Amino acid sequence: MPILPLRPLPSLLLFSLVPVASWFIVRPLLDPMPSIPALYSSIGFSIFAFLATIYLVPALGPTFVKARLSGKDLLKYYDKSIPEQDLLVPESLGLVAASVYVLSLILFIPFAFSMPILEQSHVKKAAEGITVVEFPHYQLAVYLSSLLSLLVATMLGFLDDVFDIRWRHKLPIPIIASVPLLMVYYAERGNTNVVVPLPLRFIFGKLINLGPLYYVYMSLLSTFSTNSINILAGINGSEVSQALIIALSVILNDLLYLPWPIGFRIPLHLLGNKTELEFGGVWNAGMAYGSRELVERHLFSLYFMLPLVAVCVGFMYHNWYPARVFPGDTLCYVTGMAFSVVGIQAHFSKTLLLFFMPQIFNFLLSCPQLFGLVPCPRHRVPRFDKDTNLLYPSQAIPAQPDASTKRFPATPSRLATFVVRILSALKLTEVTTDPTTGAITNTTNLTILNVFLLRLGPMSEKRLVQVLICSQVAGSILAFFIRYALAWLVYDGDRR
Amino acid sequence: MPILPLRPLPSLLLFSLVPVASWFIVRPLLDPMPSIPALYSSIGFSIFAFLATIYLVPALGPTFVKARLSGKDLLKYYDKSIPEQDLLVPESLGLVAASVYVLSLILFIPFAFSMPILEQSHVKKAAEGITVVEFPHYQLAVYLSSLLSLLVATMLGFLDDVFDIRWRHKLPIPIIASVPLLMVYYAERGNTNVVVPLPLRFIFGKLINLGPLYYVYMSLLSTFSTNSINILAGINGSEVSQALIIALSVILNDLLYLPWPIGFRIPLHLLGNKTELEFGGVWNAGMAYGSRELVERHLFSLYFMLPLVAVCVGFMYHNWYPARVFPGDTLCYVTGMAFSVVGIQAHFSKTLLLFFMPQIFNFLLSCPQLFGLVPCPRHRVPRFDKDTNLLYPSQAIPAQPDASTKRFPATPSRLATFVVRILSALKLTEVTTDPTTGAITNTTNLTILNVFLLRLGPMSEKRLVQVLICSQVAGSILAFFIRYALAWLVYDGDRR
Repeated sequence: MPILPLRPLPSLLLFSLVPVASWFIVRPLLDPMPSIPALYSSIGFSIFAFLATIYLVPALGPTFVKARLSGKDLLKYYDKSIPEQDLLVPESLGLVAASVYVLSLILFIPFAFSMPILEQSHVKKAAEGITVVEFPHYQLAVYLSSLLSLLVATMLGFLDDVFDIRWRHKLPIPIIASVPLLMVYYAERGNTNVVVPLPLRFIFGKLINLGPLYYVYMSLLSTFSTNSINILAGINGSEVSQALIIALSVILNDLLYLPWPIGFRIPLHLLGNKTELEFGGVWNAGMAYGSRELVERHLFSLYFMLPLVAVCVGFMYHNWYPARVFPGDTLCYVTGMAFSVVGIQAHFSKTLLLFFMPQIFNFLLSCPQLFGLVPCPRHRVPRFDKDTNLLYPSQAIPAQPDASTKRFPATPSRLATFVVRILSALKLTEVTTDPTTGAITNTTNLTILNVFLLRLGPMSEKRLVQVLICSQVAGSILAFFIRYALAWLVYDGDRR
Repeated sequence: MPILPLRPLPSLLLFSLVPVASWFIVRPLLDPMPSIPALYSSIGFSIFAFLATIYLVPALGPTFVKARLSGKDLLKYYDKSIPEQDLLVPESLGLVAASVYVLSLILFIPFAFSMPILEQSHVKKAAEGITVVEFPHYQLAVYLSSLLSLLVATMLGFLDDVFDIRWRHKLPIPIIASVPLLMVYYAERGNTNVVVPLPLRFIFGKLINLGPLYYVYMSLLSTFSTNSINILAGINGSEVSQALIIALSVILNDLLYLPWPIGFRIPLHLLGNKTELEFGGVWNAGMAYGSRELVERHLFSLYFMLPLVAVCVGFMYHNWYPARVFPGDTLCYVTGMAFSVVGIQAHFSKTLLLFFMPQIFNFLLSCPQLFGLVPCPRHRVPRFDKDTNLLYPSQAIPAQPDASTKRFPATPSRLATFVVRILSALKLTEVTTDPTTGAITNTTNLTILNVFLLRLGPMSEKRLVQVLICSQVAGSILAFFIRYALAWLVYDGDRR
């Protein structure tokens, strides 16, 4: 049976985290009161969430296999003599990570919102700096509606895994998960104004009230953030590593808005900005410039992102090449929803989208296949060659087509030909043409993974996921540059 | 294929409900403002929830069968020549009912809580009587935490169905679903006082603060209400009919506390109470005696119970004998959680428990099997005899035991013998003894369904569920009698 050995867990190291996490959780109750008490509890819960994920995922794997939630890893070669059932990798284990994530957010409620802690923080002021009463009490409703959306996303992701919905049909499903968010946003009379970029102000003025369109925008954001991670999938560790890096980028961005106990400055002028950014000191909260509202928004974001990073790291340990568990759709649904929740509730959806650059690129590239211009097979993962043990770009029409395989028509439409030619000229795909008619007969699948393989040559699965991670990190660095060095070109200081 | 024909849907009748439901939903926006505007919307959403359930349940049945969520109805006889797969009944369809239920509660949020409607109801007073601003805005958090608990219950119920958790192991699972409720109750500093019954006041005083024990009580309540419905199951329509009658009883009880536009009185003195109950007239709200808080609590309960009744009726149409769909555990989890949510949040948990009398009886009766005193087979449903087409009491050790069957030890423990003898003397079970040693070798399974069959003789499955429904109705009538005619014996007027 132990053909796919479980990854070893360094128990001693892990258990030494328990007292650390416990200290963080109870820190708000100890003297002297820290300036952001609930942040400590959040870190403590995140460490526990990490531990729960890293232990529960392998422990529950067999249960998932028994419930027929398992699959063979198609990009690996094993001896034919091994019976198939010994090679089954448990699938949908993202459900465990998602459940741990949501549960830790639920258990965090009394630490962020309970009156005793809030009162204590009112009475005893921290020695210096801003004492942030983390959430105004009424924000509990906002927090709960976010949790509801995350839970609906978890549920829908798992339903997707169990009922195996065709991926073109499931594109609009995340809209359902955004409904609780929208309902409470409406009931709370959420802000539907957006700041107009400088070049457009002569038409719309400085602020424009999008009204109902703002709700459309919010639900589209959740649809995008969910699906864009879900379609950049298929190799070991790809889904969870994307989520991890985006979450870390959001956290880094949030940290810029918190009151820092130490003073330092970021030389933004080197990046072309007009001002420098000074941190630390009394009442100085980084980019928040003393605005309590901005600090609170970014704390809200941190409270959702810290445990997300924790469960992603715990899950990645088992999902890393060669994967011992698969995430299923649940992980993509819940991480995507978590990003749109913080983007919407903490009002930095445009910054958030900047962290999705590889996903946006992959989505735009995929459009011809998503919308039926180019034939789209059930799986678009790179092709595995068992002799070289490397991955190669996969074809839209595979070498061994079956009955359900769609093909290019004998004479592809002019639009399809045009689009494919353009992509080919941009070196984003490789086209096969009929030697007699010159008509397109096949292309590589339009995914960013295939683009990597086309441009950098065939590589191993582990290498490919490393390239993906590097591109995601590079995208985030570029995002920070655009947000903090170039944003003054289109926005003035009055930001929301 | 159509060996188990779907139940016909009277489309014309059903579609004529669409304009009715639409009118109810938008009623709060029309002049003159009704005194409880959101109640109209709630009725409208309930009608839509009924329609969605009655249409979606049969439509999604094949999807569930395809995902291997199906089973054969063990209490029916079909010709052996029919292939098994043609006789599969979709299982876990309670998920559809639960999803419709939760979604309708989510969509109801803006109608109950949005500022425009609340403001409108402030400006335009109803002609006479109490104008109830349904929820204080801060109660949104309470509503959302209830939704979270319901959603967690839905999720856990479905996980139970997919992973098929052994029922003795899953008893504590509903505690997890009650966590959001408890967390928000704590954060909102919920009331943990209980009124002490008159005979005990000389010890505890009038009010006693249970503190943390109150939270234990709340989580036990949700565990009980969930599991007690779940273990009274196994025949067509049993789970959903219990839930339906309890929900209707709760609604009837809620209606006693609402402001009625017409005046009438209930002659409570006939039941032995000291006062009569007068309804109607300005500021008179039945049992609420003009207390806005009581009216709001019972409105809260109504908002959860009306759509529950709707989805139960819609589901029952397809689950009625001979069942075309099975509910799975999801339905029991979500209905049980809904009852404990209203019992806790609207503070009438003791009254609620009175509506659970058949379940309490069944639970107490089951205890010897639940706690291992008497052997407990995987299923305790009555035994079906295909020749007479009737149900007979089932035995704890079936006639054809398999390897996993547990048996009585050769000499059963004295406690087990004592308990079984008592139950036998009360005519609640039938005992088989070894003719030589006199030791107990078998008993009938300890369920209320077997008691009905023992006392009333073998009957058809349809008849048995009708008997169950009658006992549930009789229990509710007795509950109202106890609550409103006898309660003054142990409580004075100061009730909460």
